[in-house]
This record gives sequence, C-alpha cells and structure tokens, in this order.
Amino acid sequence: MPAAYDVDLLSDTLTRPTEAMRHAMATAEVGDDVFGEDPTVRTLEERVAGLLGHEDALFTPTGSMANQLGIRLHVAQGEELVADSLAHVLRAEMGAAAVLSGISSRSWVAQRGLLDAAQPLALMIPDGGTYQVNTRLVVVENTHNFGGGTVQPLDQIEALRAGTQPRGVAMHLDGARLWNAHVATGVGLAEYGQHFDSVSVCLSKGLGAPVGSVLVGSSDHMAQARVWRKRFGGGMRQVGILAAAGLHALDHHVERLADDHARAHRFAKAAGEAVPGSIDPATVQTNIVVLDVSVTGWSSTGFMEAAGSRGIRLYPVSPTAVRLVWHLDVDDAGTDRAVEALVPLLEKGPSAA
Amino acid sequence: MPAAYDVDLLSDTLTRPTEAMRHAMATAEVGDDVFGEDPTVRTLEERVAGLLGHEDALFTPTGSMANQLGIRLHVAQGEELVADSLAHVLRAEMGAAAVLSGISSRSWVAQRGLLDAAQPLALMIPDGGTYQVNTRLVVVENTHNFGGGTVQPLDQIEALRAGTQPRGVAMHLDGARLWNAHVATGVGLAEYGQHFDSVSVCLSKGLGAPVGSVLVGSSDHMAQARVWRKRFGGGMRQVGILAAAGLHALDHHVERLADDHARAHRFAKAAGEAVPGSIDPATVQTNIVVLDVSVTGWSSTGFMEAAGSRGIRLYPVSPTAVRLVWHLDVDDAGTDRAVEALVPLLEKGPSAA
Amino acid sequence: MPAAYDVDLLSDTLTRPTEAMRHAMATAEVGDDVFGEDPTVRTLEERVAGLLGHEDALFTPTGSMANQLGIRLHVAQGEELVADSLAHVLRAEMGAAAVLSGISSRSWVAQRGLLDAAQPLALMIPDGGTYQVNTRLVVVENTHNFGGGTVQPLDQIEALRAGTQPRGVAMHLDGARLWNAHVATGVGLAEYGQHFDSVSVCLSKGLGAPVGSVLVGSSDHMAQARVWRKRFGGGMRQVGILAAAGLHALDHHVERLADDHARAHRFAKAAGEAVPGSIDPATVQTNIVVLDVSVTGWSSTGFMEAAGSRGIRLYPVSPTAVRLVWHLDVDDAGTDRAVEALVPLLEKGPSAA
Amino acid sequence: MPAAYDVDLLSDTLTRPTEAMRHAMATAEVGDDVFGEDPTVRTLEERVAGLLGHEDALFTPTGSMANQLGIRLHVAQGEELVADSLAHVLRAEMGAAAVLSGISSRSWVAQRGLLDAAQPLALMIPDGGTYQVNTRLVVVENTHNFGGGTVQPLDQIEALRAGTQPRGVAMHLDGARLWNAHVATGVGLAEYGQHFDSVSVCLSKGLGAPVGSVLVGSSDHMAQARVWRKRFGGGMRQVGILAAAGLHALDHHVERLADDHARAHRFAKAAGEAVPGSIDPATVQTNIVVLDVSVTGWSSTGFMEAAGSRGIRLYPVSPTAVRLVWHLDVDDAGTDRAVEALVPLLEKGPSAA
Repeated sequence: MPAAYDVDLLSDTLTRPTEAMRHAMATAEVGDDVFGEDPTVRTLEERVAGLLGHEDALFTPTGSMANQLGIRLHVAQGEELVADSLAHVLRAEMGAAAVLSGISSRSWVAQRGLLDAAQPLALMIPDGGTYQVNTRLVVVENTHNFGGGTVQPLDQIEALRAGTQPRGVAMHLDGARLWNAHVATGVGLAEYGQHFDSVSVCLSKGLGAPVGSVLVGSSDHMAQARVWRKRFGGGMRQVGILAAAGLHALDHHVERLADDHARAHRFAKAAGEAVPGSIDPATVQTNIVVLDVSVTGWSSTGFMEAAGSRGIRLYPVSPTAVRLVWHLDVDDAGTDRAVEALVPLLEKGPSAA
Repeated sequence: MPAAYDVDLLSDTLTRPTEAMRHAMATAEVGDDVFGEDPTVRTLEERVAGLLGHEDALFTPTGSMANQLGIRLHVAQGEELVADSLAHVLRAEMGAAAVLSGISSRSWVAQRGLLDAAQPLALMIPDGGTYQVNTRLVVVENTHNFGGGTVQPLDQIEALRAGTQPRGVAMHLDGARLWNAHVATGVGLAEYGQHFDSVSVCLSKGLGAPVGSVLVGSSDHMAQARVWRKRFGGGMRQVGILAAAGLHALDHHVERLADDHARAHRFAKAAGEAVPGSIDPATVQTNIVVLDVSVTGWSSTGFMEAAGSRGIRLYPVSPTAVRLVWHLDVDDAGTDRAVEALVPLLEKGPSAA
Repeated sequence: MPAAYDVDLLSDTLTRPTEAMRHAMATAEVGDDVFGEDPTVRTLEERVAGLLGHEDALFTPTGSMANQLGIRLHVAQGEELVADSLAHVLRAEMGAAAVLSGISSRSWVAQRGLLDAAQPLALMIPDGGTYQVNTRLVVVENTHNFGGGTVQPLDQIEALRAGTQPRGVAMHLDGARLWNAHVATGVGLAEYGQHFDSVSVCLSKGLGAPVGSVLVGSSDHMAQARVWRKRFGGGMRQVGILAAAGLHALDHHVERLADDHARAHRFAKAAGEAVPGSIDPATVQTNIVVLDVSVTGWSSTGFMEAAGSRGIRLYPVSPTAVRLVWHLDVDDAGTDRAVEALVPLLEKGPSAA
Repeated sequence: MPAAYDVDLLSDTLTRPTEAMRHAMATAEVGDDVFGEDPTVRTLEERVAGLLGHEDALFTPTGSMANQLGIRLHVAQGEELVADSLAHVLRAEMGAAAVLSGISSRSWVAQRGLLDAAQPLALMIPDGGTYQVNTRLVVVENTHNFGGGTVQPLDQIEALRAGTQPRGVAMHLDGARLWNAHVATGVGLAEYGQHFDSVSVCLSKGLGAPVGSVLVGSSDHMAQARVWRKRFGGGMRQVGILAAAGLHALDHHVERLADDHARAHRFAKAAGEAVPGSIDPATVQTNIVVLDVSVTGWSSTGFMEAAGSRGIRLYPVSPTAVRLVWHLDVDDAGTDRAVEALVPLLEKGPSAA
C-alpha cells in the first residue's frame, strides 16, 4: 500500500463508498445475474436506460468493458472506428478494440479533446467498398478526460449526427463522466443520449460507487452485449450488491458534482492568476484541471514529486502537464490545502522543490 | 425475473451471501485496486496464494477471466492448449481463448471428465517446430463440472506433470471447485497446487461469495496478468467490498462443503437404487449429480420441465442427462424435497408428467 | 540450399513444373485479379467450381488460406469447429483459425485419420445457447495427410451429413488431395463435393502446379471470401501465370496419380512383407506411406538420417513413424531405389546405420 | 471481364509481364520455398536485402502481407502503431493489423500524405506504462499512394528517426513505390532503408512483375516473419517462377520509371494550366496524379464515368478527386490520348458529359 495523502487528486476513481451507500449494499436483494435473475441489477439497468432515453441497459464491471461492448455492436472485425487521438477508448483501454474485436482505428487531433464535427466527418470513409476499410463508428467522449474535463458542445454533437446518420455511421458516447457534463450545462441526460446509438456511463468515478458501469442501447444490442460480456469474462453473479451502490449514487451523488466543479474552478482560478499560461480557468468546466507546469520550468514528474512531498497526489498526463481531479472525498478544506501547497510551488518553479 | 423454485439445484453459482458475509462486506476497508491500493483485496490475494502454495495472486471478476488470464500466461498467439472435450475452458467460456488471445485448442474425450494422463500426453505436440502448431499447455479441471463433480486422481495429475514438464509444456488448473476436491479427498490445496504453473479458484460457487475468482502463479506472471486484466475490462476499483466476502467464505464456508457432498450423494443413492443405470452413486464424490434420465424414456428438457412444475430447478447438460448441484442454499429439507419429487418422476418416465 | 537427394519422398509439395506446364504459364493471358480481371484465373475458378459441383470458386496462394477462408464462412468469432486431432487445419495451419478468425476448436482422436461419423456427431454441440460455445462446422480431410493418405468412406461422409444438416452444422472438406481420393476410388469429384458447404483443393501437391489452391462454395460465400482473401494478404495481381499451370495440371496430371498410388503401394508391400507390423499395405490407398520404424528399434529421426545418407529423403511424423510421399517427380526407378535402400535398413534396425 | 480501355490509368498494379519477363519465368530454377529450397527466391531475397542495406529478406504474395508481417515484428498484441490517416496500412489493408495481430492504431492528418516529423512525434506515447497503450511503431509510406505519389523528404525521415530511436519506437517503411522515390530524387535505396527497422517493397506495381513483394529487416526478424507468413496463409511452394519476374524487373524496369514520372508530370501540367486549382504540377513528383475535379463542378464518380466513356480508366479517391497512375503499359501516345480526352472534359465541367 502507498503512503496516504492529505489531499488525493489522482483520480475520481478513488472515491470510497459512504456509510449510507454501504448500508444500501448490505441490504440489497440479489440473484444470479448471469441468468438475468438479480432484481437490483435489473432495477439499475432499467433506471439508467430510462435516464439516457434508451430501450435497455447492461451492467458491466468496468467502464472499459462497457465501451468495448458498445463499440463492437456497431463495428465488425476488419472495420473501423474513429475517435480523437486522446480518447479513452484509444489511449486508456489497452488496445482492447483491436485485441478483443479485431477493430481498426484512426484518429484526429483535437484541442483539449473538444469536438469539432468537421474533423471526424472529414476522416470517416464509410463507403470503402471491398478494397478499403469501412468506417462504421465515431466515438465521442463527454466530458473528455485527458482533455481536462472538457464538455462537448451540443451543437457539434448534433452536427456530427447530421453528418454521420445519412451515411450509416453509428455514434457511441463514452459518457463515463456524462453526469458532470449534465450538471455543468443543465443539458438533460436523455438530450445527450438521443444522439447516440449506445452510451456508457460510469458509477465508480464522480458518483462514488465502488465498482461498475452501465451500457445503454437498443434491446437487441443489449442482448448481444450480454453474450459478449460473458465472453469477455464479465458475467458476474450476485451483482445486486454493487448495483445497490449505483442506485444509491443516482439518488444522492449526481447534483453534488456541482461542488466538485466549483472546487476545481477555484483552484484553476488561483493557479491561472498566479501563473498566467499554466491554465485558462474559463476552460475548467467540470471536475478536472490540466495544469501546464512547464511555464515555470517544471517537468510534470518533478512537480508530481514535489506535490507528493507536500501531501498532495496528482497525475502527470504528459511531460509538461499534470492532472488534478476533484471528487466526493475532497472537500473545501482539501481544496484550500491544494491551493496553498501547489500554487506557490508552481510560481517558484523547480528551485522550490 | 423467473418464478421462484422451492429447491434450486440449477447451479452452485446461485448462492446468496449470508448476513455475516454481508456484514463483512459492509465494513471492509477499501481502496482503488486498479492502482493496487485496496488492502482487503491484497489480503485476499496473499491468503489464496498461500493456500495454493504459489508466489502471488490476482482477484478477477469471474472464473472465466481467471482462467483466460492464466491460459495466456503460458500460450502465445498461434500456439495451442489441450483439454478434455467437456472442459469449462473449451465449452463454457464462449471460445474466449481463441477470441481474446488467438490460442488454438484440441481435445481428448474423457469419461465423466476423469483425467487419464495418457490421453493428453498422446495428444500434445510441443515440438511442432515452425511448420506445425506447438502445444504449450494442458488444462485440468478439478472437480470437473460437466463430468459431474468428478475429482481428479492425484496420481494422474502427477503422471501428467512427469510427462509434460520435461517437454516444456505448462499445466493450468481450473480449480473453480478445487475446494470441493480438497474437502472430498482431504488432499491439501497446496498439494494440488504444486503440480500446476497457475491455478484459478472461485469464490462465488460453493463458497457462497457473490462475485469473484482468484488466479495464482508466479509474481512475474501475476504482474503480466494484472495488465491483461485491465485490457479484458476487468480492472475494478474499490473491490475490497467483494474481497471481504471471499475472506469471510474462506473462514466459514470451506469445511461445510462436506454437507453439500453428503446431500448430493444421498440423492444419487436414492435415484440410483430406484432406477439402476441412471446414476452410479459411487461416482458422486462432491456436490454435483449428473443423472441419465433417458433410462426411463425422458428427454433432459422434458425432465427439466416436469421437475420445474414440481418446484425444483435443474439443468439439462445433454439431450439425455440433467445436472443437479448442491450448495449453501439447499439444506437437508430441500434435499428431502428433491428426492421425494424427482425419484418417482424418474421412475415413472414421461407419462408421469 | 540443402544437398540434393536421389529420391525425394519428403512431400508431394516438392513437384516441379514440367516443360509443358511452363509453356502454359509463359503464354497465359493475364489481368489484375484483385479487380477480378484475370481471364485465366476466372477460367480456372469456373472449371474447378464445375468439377466439384459448386456455384463458384476462388483462387488462393496456398491451401492453408483456402481452408481458413472456407472455415470462416461458416463459423463466427467465438464459435467453434470440430475436426480430428491430426487434421491439417488443426495441426499444420499454425493455429490460424484462432489467430485470424477467433474461432475455437475441439477434436476427436481418429485411427489413421479415418472418419467415423459417430465421433464428430457425439462431440458437436450446435445448441449451446448463450452460455456455451456453439459448434458450427465439422472439417473432414480427404485424403488424410498425417493419417497416411487415408481415403474417407463415402458412407461415413453421408452419415455425417445426415447428422449435421438437420442441426444447422456446416461441413467443410479439406480436399488438398481429393484428386487422389477420386482416382483411388473412382468416386466423382462432384459426388464428394455435394456433401459439403465448401471445399478446398490444391494444385501444387499431386497435381504438380507450382503455387495455388482453389476454394469452392456458393456465390455469396465466394464474394465474402474474396474480401477476406485481401484482408489476409492473399489478393495477388496477374495470377493467370499460376492459374495456367493449374489448368494444365487438370488436363494432364489427374489420372496419372494412379501411378503414384501404385508405386506407394509397391513400396508398402515390400516393407510390410519384410517387417510385419511396420505397415499394413492394405491401408495404403493413395500416395502416402506412414511406416512404423520402431518395430525394429529405429527412432523416426534416426531412420530419417540413415535414409538421407543413402540419398533418400522422408519425414518423421512422430517419434516412431516416418512418412514417404510419392509424386510427379518420383518414377518407377526411384521407387526401386527406395525399396532397395530402405527395406534392408528397416529390417536390420539401427545397427545398420 | 470488364470492357477494355484504350488507356488504363486505374493503377500501376495493372502492368502485364513483358515477353522477356515471361521468358525469365518460364526458365526459372525452382524448389519448395516453404522448406527454404527455392534458389531463385533466395537470390531475389538476397538481392533486395542488399539493395535496401538490410541483413535479410522474405518474399511475400502481396504488399499487404509484407507490411503486415513487418508491422507485427515491432508491435505486440494490445500495443500501438501510428501512421498518417491515409496510409495504405490503415486504409487499404482492410484493418489487417487489428484483425491478424491485435494491434491498435492512431493517425495524424497529413497534407498530400507529406511527412512532417513533428506530427508523429507529438502523437506517439511510448511510455504508457501499464495503464495506457504503448506506441511501438511509426509507419511511413514513400511514395505516398493516396497522397498522390508524394516523395517523403529525407530530412523529415531523419528527424523522425532522431525522435523515435531514443524512445524505443521502431520505424517501418511501406516502400511499395520506393523505386519511384529513388528514381525521382536520386536518393539511394539503402540511404532510405538505413533509417527503418523494416521495409517492404513491391515488385508488381511500377516494376511490372505479376505477383509479389519483399520484406527486409534483420535475420532474426525475417525468421519470425517466415513463420507468420505461413500462419497468414502465404507460404507458397515453387515461387521461383514469380521471383524470376522480380529479378528481371530489378534489372530492366527500375530506371524506366523516370518515363512514367515524366508522362504523369506532362499530364498534370496540361491539366493544371487549363484548370488552375485542379492540380499543382509541382506536387507531381512521381507516377501518380490526384486531380481535384470539383473545381469545375464534377463529382469524382461523374468524371470517372465520363472518362470511361472516352476509353480512359481512372479511380475516384474521394468525392472530389480522381487518381491517375502511369505505368509500364502506358506510353507517350497513351499519355497524349489522356491529355486530349480528359483536359477538355475537366475544363468544360459536367455539362460536357
């Protein structure tokens, strides 16, 4: 086990279940979900499908599995998906689309992960015939993790849908942090959901459940995904224990994401004012801050180590930038601590270490 | 949700967590296991590694994933594993070794799944050179699920090891129900474990935990398996909730498997005496009974339906045979009910339906 | 380059094109076959489709590619084929079905590769539903290479078809040496072909063309196979050069296979009479002889080396047996040489080396 | 078979073997190349390895297979390659890297396929650790097919090598048309070759051989590639027939590529002067012209059809552009015909059709 940190901004995956959530898990009704007999899982699936405005849903052990199941509903072996070059499905799922499904991929380069519909529309080639790869899917990530919690503009999503649908290209939403986009913008979950053929959402990041994601889509697609979930080794048994945590989170942990957003923005404002160029606070829309520490001469790993020795954990996302993520287990006092410890460090540069 | 059954002998995967187990889960210390920071998971992994006499261990969401991670440690893309034709890894994991890892397979046909070392030794070709497939792994299943809970003879395991080791062929043990073999024979878990390069054991079958399996092997292998667990979509977060159930099960649910065995044997004796040829009670060593219902003219699905209408659920494993599995949630009274309902049904044949 | 041998019985893949065949190649009309514009390839495909009684055909660079394209027409990722444990598709194609197509496989153990329909029928499970692997294909090899050129009995093929067809299981014929079966038995090529959903035949073994195989099946299937041939890297350009050799071979090299069979049988008779138990000449139906050299104490590699030093090349198929293959470039005199050199060697045992 | 065209500019893959080349094939010495015994293949492999300045080489049936074998030498299952978004390996090889090898991919968007080393260097992430995909390979295509025969600047190749090598990222050259780059620039083949860990070159495009490509690299890598060539179904037998054509092409068809370049340039000049904006002749460095026909209102398929009805075949590479490729079978007169037929058509726009 690593040393504990005073303020852990490594990731919102770190959230621990609250007492109330633990109680919900301890009293959950359960059954064997491989046989479709867990009532709590079923309740969660129906609820999430309803929230996103889709027909049906499927619980999965991880967000990666939810995305990978969603992807292969739309793309066959030897066909192609396109996504931005820092998309979670291309960068953080370990090449799974190629390994598990034989799916090829290409990417465009986006600033802060921000969707510009013209880029995927220029890239995709759905009519490759029998001599070229056929593009079958565009993946959009909202909010965009490595981009810094970027919220995707609804008009760009609509423009993308308008350009892909007539050409038979599907759209999958990696909505691991769609809850954050929803709370930040007020755009309804189903308003986002309607533009996509499948959506994954995560229960174990901002929402604070210990384990699990949910994939939504058509009933036919969910039936197929259920079979492939078993093939991928994700067919678990009395999962109601985990689903109960998800249901609790939907009741209690969605609206409070606004607090995470406010805290992240407060930190960004302090850092951006102290060291212009390190971060534009206007771009911090949700719970993630990507800070360019090279402005004052830091390497990202050097800054990470200096922060760590001051009790604060963060993540180097590139040689020049670090990522800080706010979540359920970081409050106002923790945010104060982060500002007090990190802003002077950033200002002074590596000589401060 | 399906109608409830009075006695559910469909599978030992159906077991529901006890109150004490739920309490253990509710109070478990947790962390983010993707970053290796969940102390309860770590405790479970170390304990299971120790029990099996291996260096290290890895928690997985399912037994299929534990097996598939174990398999690919020993076999590269385009190489081969061999197993008996009804092995879980070939029959019930949805072709995962081929899909996820590009691993080829061949099989031998075993009676009741019983290991005869001569069969795999005759089949394997480890020295195929560059023109033929090279056999790199033999998988043994103990106890053997579709074979009827068959315990593998230790001398055959030893003979297999003696034949494979000098030729560089590895051995993986699918020990989903190794606990049952251990309790039935008194052979130590590590005594089994020492003959294999990797072993998977399941927490959610006879042991009664809601979710999870554990893979054991060398430290190097477990580090590799950890990366591939993420690629397969099995990298979960605060898994200590589930690991706590596993630890509780190891403390409280291993020795009691003897009760399941006694009940299964009692049923088999009643059936075998009533309808000779339907089952040889001497072959019922653990918690599984495979009953040949064709002796009195039943099809397996016909018998399943007739049993169901009498409140008892079982599984048709072939056109002529049904499988009944005893577990934590079936007691002596339930066993009485099964005997009273099913033995006359079997005796009378389909006209009784 | 290896030393030349007086008599090369290593394989019938060694055949060199005759002068007349070279002339046919040199004068072939050609086009770009990736665009379907090579007239000689088209002529060959139509001719082979007609011979086998199928709708359409596709030229491939190798027999392995023809088999692997045929297999994936019938079996999806995560589904299963079954074949005998020494089938070329399982042993000599380098695990390609798993690697290229994610297809799982199981096998039965056959004597001399001889088809007994009951074995695959007992093994296959086409109705595995969503929890088990579904068997979609049985592969039959005729003649059977590693089995010793074994001809498959037509009644067993018919029994297999009768058992598989109602259950929706397809049949693929690996007919690399179907020409030999046809000449040995007089059974028509189309009479064999009609029982299968796809058939591969080879032009570069007994027929003596330098390169190429042909897959036959329905027009829809061939259109799919054409796309996958490109994906596998087998979409060649002015292939009419090679197809011309194939057409020449069909005109001139089919009936002469009877000579190869007679020579192989003559050798087997001499060996079997000299050393009973080394070979039963009655089993030598075509151009392959598998000789058990362990009867007089030889290892297969020891015998191979001793034969080599006497100018004769053969192949050790197992630790105890060697394979000798007759073909276009071995005549009566070469057969005499083989008998004179090898039979005494076999009789005397390793001390003769 | 399609109707014949007076001038066929569809692709340089259309070239037919000359009489002299046919003679070389008809008299080639051959052996079984699966066993490494074809002397003409061996001669070709050694010659091409020498030309590119690498240790060893391997003949393959197609350029796609050569590339796919090269790629997998450097990238493991679940790792990543990067290439420009119109690279042949990503667009025209049918997703083979994902299907055959489980390799993930990302791309950058390049103008005319022109290499700017900064783009791949910004994209690649070789140090992804165990949570992110690791970039292992950059693929460069020279000349660039879909980019319009673009020659890659040597200084950019050098800059890329300088940036990748210290970070352990390999480089593969898709040199299907490297002959054209060599002839256009005078840069030696080995001067290009030295910057790459593996190179594929094609014999059946500009060089005019009917079939085949060659992969070069280290001896260890070629030994591995040989095994995988068999697994991919590319292990052919008496391939000396085809290798002889390749040797002939190396002797007689390299320098003459300058004629193709001059003719392509002449056409581009005529078109560019007549319709400014349709093509910048300065960008036509080799044998490929990509013409923007939308300038005068044409769609690419409309222009293709109009050209076809005038006896000239070309290829629509995008909705707005067509590709014309010069080769061995198009002479000065054919070029005149193309200018006379197509330039007025382009000038007048669709009303001319």
